[in-house]
Amino acid sequence: MTTHDLKQLLDAVRGGRVSVDDAVSQIPPPASADLGFATLDLHRHMRCGFPEVIFGEGKTAEWIDGAVRALAAAGQDAFVTRVNDAQSAHLTTAFPQAEQDRLARTFLLRSATERVTPVGLVQVVTAGTGDLPVAQEAVVTARVMGANADLIADVGVAGIHRVLRHRDKLNAADVVVVVAGMDGALPSVVGGLVDGPVIACPTSIGYGAAFGGLAALLTMLNSCSAGVAVVNIDAGFKAGYVAARMVRRMHLNK
Amino acid sequence: MTTHDLKQLLDAVRGGRVSVDDAVSQIPPPASADLGFATLDLHRHMRCGFPEVIFGEGKTAEWIDGAVRALAAAGQDAFVTRVNDAQSAHLTTAFPQAEQDRLARTFLLRSATERVTPVGLVQVVTAGTGDLPVAQEAVVTARVMGANADLIADVGVAGIHRVLRHRDKLNAADVVVVVAGMDGALPSVVGGLVDGPVIACPTSIGYGAAFGGLAALLTMLNSCSAGVAVVNIDAGFKAGYVAARMVRRMHLNK
Amino acid sequence: MTTHDLKQLLDAVRGGRVSVDDAVSQIPPPASADLGFATLDLHRHMRCGFPEVIFGEGKTAEWIDGAVRALAAAGQDAFVTRVNDAQSAHLTTAFPQAEQDRLARTFLLRSATERVTPVGLVQVVTAGTGDLPVAQEAVVTARVMGANADLIADVGVAGIHRVLRHRDKLNAADVVVVVAGMDGALPSVVGGLVDGPVIACPTSIGYGAAFGGLAALLTMLNSCSAGVAVVNIDAGFKAGYVAARMVRRMHLNK
Amino acid sequence: MTTHDLKQLLDAVRGGRVSVDDAVSQIPPPASADLGFATLDLHRHMRCGFPEVIFGEGKTAEWIDGAVRALAAAGQDAFVTRVNDAQSAHLTTAFPQAEQDRLARTFLLRSATERVTPVGLVQVVTAGTGDLPVAQEAVVTARVMGANADLIADVGVAGIHRVLRHRDKLNAADVVVVVAGMDGALPSVVGGLVDGPVIACPTSIGYGAAFGGLAALLTMLNSCSAGVAVVNIDAGFKAGYVAARMVRRMHLNK
Amino acid sequence: MTTHDLKQLLDAVRGGRVSVDDAVSQIPPPASADLGFATLDLHRHMRCGFPEVIFGEGKTAEWIDGAVRALAAAGQDAFVTRVNDAQSAHLTTAFPQAEQDRLARTFLLRSATERVTPVGLVQVVTAGTGDLPVAQEAVVTARVMGANADLIADVGVAGIHRVLRHRDKLNAADVVVVVAGMDGALPSVVGGLVDGPVIACPTSIGYGAAFGGLAALLTMLNSCSAGVAVVNIDAGFKAGYVAARMVRRMHLNK
Amino acid sequence: MTTHDLKQLLDAVRGGRVSVDDAVSQIPPPASADLGFATLDLHRHMRCGFPEVIFGEGKTAEWIDGAVRALAAAGQDAFVTRVNDAQSAHLTTAFPQAEQDRLARTFLLRSATERVTPVGLVQVVTAGTGDLPVAQEAVVTARVMGANADLIADVGVAGIHRVLRHRDKLNAADVVVVVAGMDGALPSVVGGLVDGPVIACPTSIGYGAAFGGLAALLTMLNSCSAGVAVVNIDAGFKAGYVAARMVRRMHLNK
Amino acid sequence: MTTHDLKQLLDAVRGGRVSVDDAVSQIPPPASADLGFATLDLHRHMRCGFPEVIFGEGKTAEWIDGAVRALAAAGQDAFVTRVNDAQSAHLTTAFPQAEQDRLARTFLLRSATERVTPVGLVQVVTAGTGDLPVAQEAVVTARVMGANADLIADVGVAGIHRVLRHRDKLNAADVVVVVAGMDGALPSVVGGLVDGPVIACPTSIGYGAAFGGLAALLTMLNSCSAGVAVVNIDAGFKAGYVAARMVRRMHLNK
Amino acid sequence: MTTHDLKQLLDAVRGGRVSVDDAVSQIPPPASADLGFATLDLHRHMRCGFPEVIFGEGKTAEWIDGAVRALAAAGQDAFVTRVNDAQSAHLTTAFPQAEQDRLARTFLLRSATERVTPVGLVQVVTAGTGDLPVAQEAVVTARVMGANADLIADVGVAGIHRVLRHRDKLNAADVVVVVAGMDGALPSVVGGLVDGPVIACPTSIGYGAAFGGLAALLTMLNSCSAGVAVVNIDAGFKAGYVAARMVRRMHLNK
Repeated sequence: MTTHDLKQLLDAVRGGRVSVDDAVSQIPPPASADLGFATLDLHRHMRCGFPEVIFGEGKTAEWIDGAVRALAAAGQDAFVTRVNDAQSAHLTTAFPQAEQDRLARTFLLRSATERVTPVGLVQVVTAGTGDLPVAQEAVVTARVMGANADLIADVGVAGIHRVLRHRDKLNAADVVVVVAGMDGALPSVVGGLVDGPVIACPTSIGYGAAFGGLAALLTMLNSCSAGVAVVNIDAGFKAGYVAARMVRRMHLNK
Repeated sequence: MTTHDLKQLLDAVRGGRVSVDDAVSQIPPPASADLGFATLDLHRHMRCGFPEVIFGEGKTAEWIDGAVRALAAAGQDAFVTRVNDAQSAHLTTAFPQAEQDRLARTFLLRSATERVTPVGLVQVVTAGTGDLPVAQEAVVTARVMGANADLIADVGVAGIHRVLRHRDKLNAADVVVVVAGMDGALPSVVGGLVDGPVIACPTSIGYGAAFGGLAALLTMLNSCSAGVAVVNIDAGFKAGYVAARMVRRMHLNK
Repeated sequence: MTTHDLKQLLDAVRGGRVSVDDAVSQIPPPASADLGFATLDLHRHMRCGFPEVIFGEGKTAEWIDGAVRALAAAGQDAFVTRVNDAQSAHLTTAFPQAEQDRLARTFLLRSATERVTPVGLVQVVTAGTGDLPVAQEAVVTARVMGANADLIADVGVAGIHRVLRHRDKLNAADVVVVVAGMDGALPSVVGGLVDGPVIACPTSIGYGAAFGGLAALLTMLNSCSAGVAVVNIDAGFKAGYVAARMVRRMHLNK
Repeated sequence: MTTHDLKQLLDAVRGGRVSVDDAVSQIPPPASADLGFATLDLHRHMRCGFPEVIFGEGKTAEWIDGAVRALAAAGQDAFVTRVNDAQSAHLTTAFPQAEQDRLARTFLLRSATERVTPVGLVQVVTAGTGDLPVAQEAVVTARVMGANADLIADVGVAGIHRVLRHRDKLNAADVVVVVAGMDGALPSVVGGLVDGPVIACPTSIGYGAAFGGLAALLTMLNSCSAGVAVVNIDAGFKAGYVAARMVRRMHLNK
Repeated sequence: MTTHDLKQLLDAVRGGRVSVDDAVSQIPPPASADLGFATLDLHRHMRCGFPEVIFGEGKTAEWIDGAVRALAAAGQDAFVTRVNDAQSAHLTTAFPQAEQDRLARTFLLRSATERVTPVGLVQVVTAGTGDLPVAQEAVVTARVMGANADLIADVGVAGIHRVLRHRDKLNAADVVVVVAGMDGALPSVVGGLVDGPVIACPTSIGYGAAFGGLAALLTMLNSCSAGVAVVNIDAGFKAGYVAARMVRRMHLNK
Repeated sequence: MTTHDLKQLLDAVRGGRVSVDDAVSQIPPPASADLGFATLDLHRHMRCGFPEVIFGEGKTAEWIDGAVRALAAAGQDAFVTRVNDAQSAHLTTAFPQAEQDRLARTFLLRSATERVTPVGLVQVVTAGTGDLPVAQEAVVTARVMGANADLIADVGVAGIHRVLRHRDKLNAADVVVVVAGMDGALPSVVGGLVDGPVIACPTSIGYGAAFGGLAALLTMLNSCSAGVAVVNIDAGFKAGYVAARMVRRMHLNK
Repeated sequence: MTTHDLKQLLDAVRGGRVSVDDAVSQIPPPASADLGFATLDLHRHMRCGFPEVIFGEGKTAEWIDGAVRALAAAGQDAFVTRVNDAQSAHLTTAFPQAEQDRLARTFLLRSATERVTPVGLVQVVTAGTGDLPVAQEAVVTARVMGANADLIADVGVAGIHRVLRHRDKLNAADVVVVVAGMDGALPSVVGGLVDGPVIACPTSIGYGAAFGGLAALLTMLNSCSAGVAVVNIDAGFKAGYVAARMVRRMHLNK
Repeated sequence: MTTHDLKQLLDAVRGGRVSVDDAVSQIPPPASADLGFATLDLHRHMRCGFPEVIFGEGKTAEWIDGAVRALAAAGQDAFVTRVNDAQSAHLTTAFPQAEQDRLARTFLLRSATERVTPVGLVQVVTAGTGDLPVAQEAVVTARVMGANADLIADVGVAGIHRVLRHRDKLNAADVVVVVAGMDGALPSVVGGLVDGPVIACPTSIGYGAAFGGLAALLTMLNSCSAGVAVVNIDAGFKAGYVAARMVRRMHLNK
């Protein structure tokens, strides 16, 4: 909307040719909101299909609170990840109507108006039980972003029949997210079983030479299955986000 | 095809109810071919949508030659990556009809029968000119795998207007592959401009502390744009492959 | 001042030709003060333009207390960085008149006499909200060192319009300090927008493969924008110090 | 220049009120030039004060040749770094009038019109003789960018009197660039001797645990002298560039 | 044999009660042989069941030649690994009767007298064709050390049916050696299929982030299959040696 | 057991020809048990000789509790490693009859029916006293898995006579497990003293440059004694497991 | 003492030719003491000139207590390093007569009989105040081991005059121990000022890219001063020990 | 010598009270010589007991040639290390009278006048034959620096009796230098056998996970023998230098 367009619209409002409500809905939101400690990207939704998401780590509860309110004020969903216990307690009090998932460590305050219908299927798979928090963050994120998401837990390659059993389910999904710590070998096997994209997410679970997930990360980057792309260590959010973005492309944009 | 089915088919052949040619086309190929030095995965195409691809590095020209012939004998495309000069010379003599791209260092011997119609668009983008060989490997791979692919070169973030200029083109693509060495910062910017999936591919181009692509790899894994997934350093093949797999899902499977 | 010069001065005092006060102001301070646990560099101000600064980490409150008193006794500003909560509590009691900034974790006891007029402008910019403590340390340090300093928060490259909006402000500054964790990509973009020096300061904010700031550090060292120099991870102090040193050179020495 | 302005100018040309030559000089160059393999940033000079510089590594002689011609055609200086012997031979034939420095491995084709008067002083210092190629790249770069530059070689800290002897010279410079391999300790000493900014550039010279310059890089990042900022390993170009940018700011912009 | 025993034996020889030949066979060889450039461990066979093996890398052909002769003189097998082309040519001339395997890069000069009967079975498996030289080194070593050894090539996890097909063969072996580069995921799958020990040997085959075998090494150390032990990168010799040692224990010592 | 076999068995039950109890014992357990948060591999025992073992780290006490009950319900031993204090307290209450070893941090709930007779000998050796918890985990694991196991503590190479004194004991064992932190040098010495397999297990004990066991890990991987294979840092469980697997092979399978 | 010698001695005791006390003093102590959790090396003193020293980290207070008693029982000094607060409290109660230094975190229980006269001089120097605990551990260790030791604190290279002032003192010492974190540059300067050996000890003090002392460690290993040898990060004990060993060699053995 | 002293001396020369030759011998040499590409430290000998040594790597033959001539002109020994084949050929022609050792890759041009009498003994020991070039560099260096030096080759810990056999020789030496690649375990054993200082020098010999000597370096830094100090990877020169410095201190300064 150029300045010229805006001027015309306001003339029409003054002239009574356009109602105030209609005008409000036609004026785009500002591109960002300055909170002093944050510059919220209010156009993220228009550009990337989803509002900006708040990464909770290293932030005070007050900063998160402020950012949530600013997003809500702009009529957008407020989604926060990596919410620790102290932040969670603060947010529970401040936004009792919000949804929190303590396994995934997420917080969601939905906007009153917006509500997307979930499409497709993101199938999240974990190699072990210790990988569950990261996997759950992926599931919650994918759902918030408008994709259906499902979880299969603990089907690591040391008992290869466990994952082979789910072959049809994996092939039925639009995107498979594989979450694994230790040797991070599961995505290579899954990548050889399906023909859709596989997103591999390493976790920091493991003995000493796992080096906080570095071992699993390298395994996944070097996967001998060519259809595997990788996200950051313990980055369940990113895995769910990138998967949901693909799913929505598959079902809505084409 | 179960043993029971096979028996019925062969009875029909013997009884003259099915021609030999029809029978041949109904019997599935063996799952793998043992060449002594290699066990070709002849079902890869059925499971993953593409035949097995041969990674040329560290192989003798004879091994590659043998694998190409085995794939051709099975009526499948033979695609080889990371073909060095000596291997290329050997292959030129052995398979004069094949297509080679020396910038991408690829070799392709198409099967006589199979030919896929390309769909969608993989938009490959490079940060610098030195990233071109890897980017071209991605382009060639995506095309071989059945996707349309296009290249925009040298639009790194030090001159941010260069990439902003291509905004519409990037948004029009199904998947964007961003190839970058040095600081590897371009995918983060592109990831914030588009709403489709972004595949980031680091290259080993750069000064000392690039550490052979490690710096760019880490940048991409830590991208503040959530829609970015990453493949291995200099892995143009993988970037093109994973992108094509997504594109074909978007256009064909749904 | 040689021994010979000193002797002449003292003769003049004895002879009444020079007042005691004048003599005191002419005799340079000792080059260092031995505190047993520390050897304060009392000439740092003369050589480098600023007094020695105390790095609080790994020191007992008693050591810091002693060093502050020694600097104060020498008529110099006492500036302490990385002050933890316990140290801060001790210092609040010991030096109630001092200025502390708990976000920046700094302590400042100004000398009674010295007071520099701030010059120029150090523009500090952060990619995210989690980078604020480090950025604030840079702002406070630059101000203590005699430069004006300003802060723009949370304009990371995932929403590139946020930083482009501040283009004029960035170009108006003498030096830009860019503080960023995760992918550390912001300095590369800023370095391509301005023609003055850019100091990049990585932070330890991020997911697993950020490796405590290593990812951002490598990104910055490999910046494709040639005008970017880098300081240590989380080293807000150093960023502010080196920027202030440049600013004062620009405005005072020429 | 807006489209409106451009229209007015062309009207004036058609009306004979403005000569063609004057019009040419008033129309800004395009922001970039697409060469297929490269997208030259033709506005870099306007934004950052210097034209885009070509990094020679990993490029064919043909690509470099093309980029040089495109910059020359745009009336800009063409400066190439990391020119290897084969590229150099090609460029000598193609551009006999250009200046090449084989120690620094640089190539410079000056534009006919532009010529900056050098200002200030960048003092480049090396710890050892093996650091000379990197240091010379810094010297040549700083000069090309419009700063005076001087070199002091081989004054490492194992013989501390060597650098102390140059104290006055170092303090007289606007910026000091310290180039050092092995332990990389020289910048810490120099940073404590001067009050201007110090740019430290590690080199890959050294025994095994130098790890290709990593040791010197870490030393410099951890310098106990607060006024030291760091550039990439062996990045003489970047050291010279960032230093020249500071020097020109000091002498011209204020 | 104590000095006292030796004295008694020599008395018996002098007295004609023991023949010279018998005496020779009763006197143990010296514990080591000093060659100036090497101290051959001539008791290795007695202590560890196999003679000392010569690691060819970084040695002159003359040193290897000398060590081979010294072992032969002591009546022991001379086995050399990592023999490069130049060394091989020298050794072919010097010891025409010796056995060389150029794929495995090994040299073997058997002693005239000693010849062990091979026992058991070491099953060597590779993930890819590029892993063959290392695998062949393992096969040759195991055979030299007195175990039967067999090779299955190219059954990586991207086509999981390839290895599942060999399940019985793997379970029939005493020890399985798995050789894999890239993601190094195969040992985890094999370790979950068999109940005997699995020795995993990473190779340096792979794209950039394979980091010369580091990725595969870490995968294997972090294998979620508990029965997997690991040897050094590209250490086919070690894998074969440790496997043979186990096999001989299983078949001979109990 | 095929569906056909199962049908026949059930017919026999209905016909009274087979008792229900007999039928139960003839029907194999399911291959896995889905607990939602875990997919227990109930065939691990059949394939690998031991039931699945639960890695306690990063799991809630509830998850461990559930997995233990599921294994017990399947009539299998439930063995948990890396049990922390909170988990241990929960398990003590839930399963008072179970055996816990707080030095080894293990938990064992034996099945009522199964009880293996221990065979052979795993000799565990530590370099220092700080290595004891890891060594004890190896001892407990080996015993649970059905091997006899013994411990020699604190015989590091700085006092070489300490380990030489145990030479006979080491040679008498079927497998030697060497647990060492710091320089990790002990396995190289032990590997040269015995003719059986040596499993080296690095620990995270040591000063700064031990880097959490990395130093010892690298030492062991590079052991100049060829008979040494390595497991993960602090992975006492894995060392004990792999050793027991070898021992049982030696004594039972052949 | 051979078995034969021992027999003769005991005969003499029985025959009254040697008193029991004399016999006791002639019989050497056992080479080691088995405590179950530890094998004390009681001959360390004879071989290396000092008794075995107990590294407190990762040990229970009970283990330390037991080892101290065993050394005391053998008439040897018991020296413990890295004693944490809990261990210290236990030891204060158990051995009230022992000497503890809480800055150095050491414990010393002297044997009643032995007492060495200190010789020579170990001059310990620190770059910063934060390095003091490590330096004090070096001082205490050197003194316990029989050398005189002195401390100069906080003379880092950012104020080079501070260390130059101590030039004579440094040259007068037999060995100089330099303790430094951050850039670890001080040993290079000191190594160029003196002609005796310099032991460099890195500490973990510093900002992010100090990587827990790795930066300082690499600086010191790459020192351009050839006379510098290095010990582990934060290994004040080792620095003091190796220095004392040299000093005693210089003054006593020649 | 102050300016005042110099003036008095020259007056005496003019007055004939002092001969020109005597005056020359009384005037100290300049502290350094500026060669443009190098600043030779001509006082190194006075400060550190040995002249400056030239590190050949990364230098042109011309630079080395010039530095050698400058040292010779100053009447000092010219010692060059890491001389490659091309440099060696140049130097052979330029200085036919000099001594070169091609195994150690050293060059020595002795001054006509100076000649030190070797003292004491540096005992150099290698773990393997591949470590010989580095060990020989240590031997040559120690001898040039004025110490006697001897070599024992190939006594690694895999055959522990080899080094135990040399126990007396090791204890007789003033300093032991242990050179080892692969696991780098030998210094820990030697450090427990002798009571003098041990200098450990890692080499880059070994399989993949030796990481160019990093494994051996870490082993040595973490040596459980407290008397071991470490120098850089492959730094035979430094090991020999630091050892000789100790030996001369032991024999001459006390």
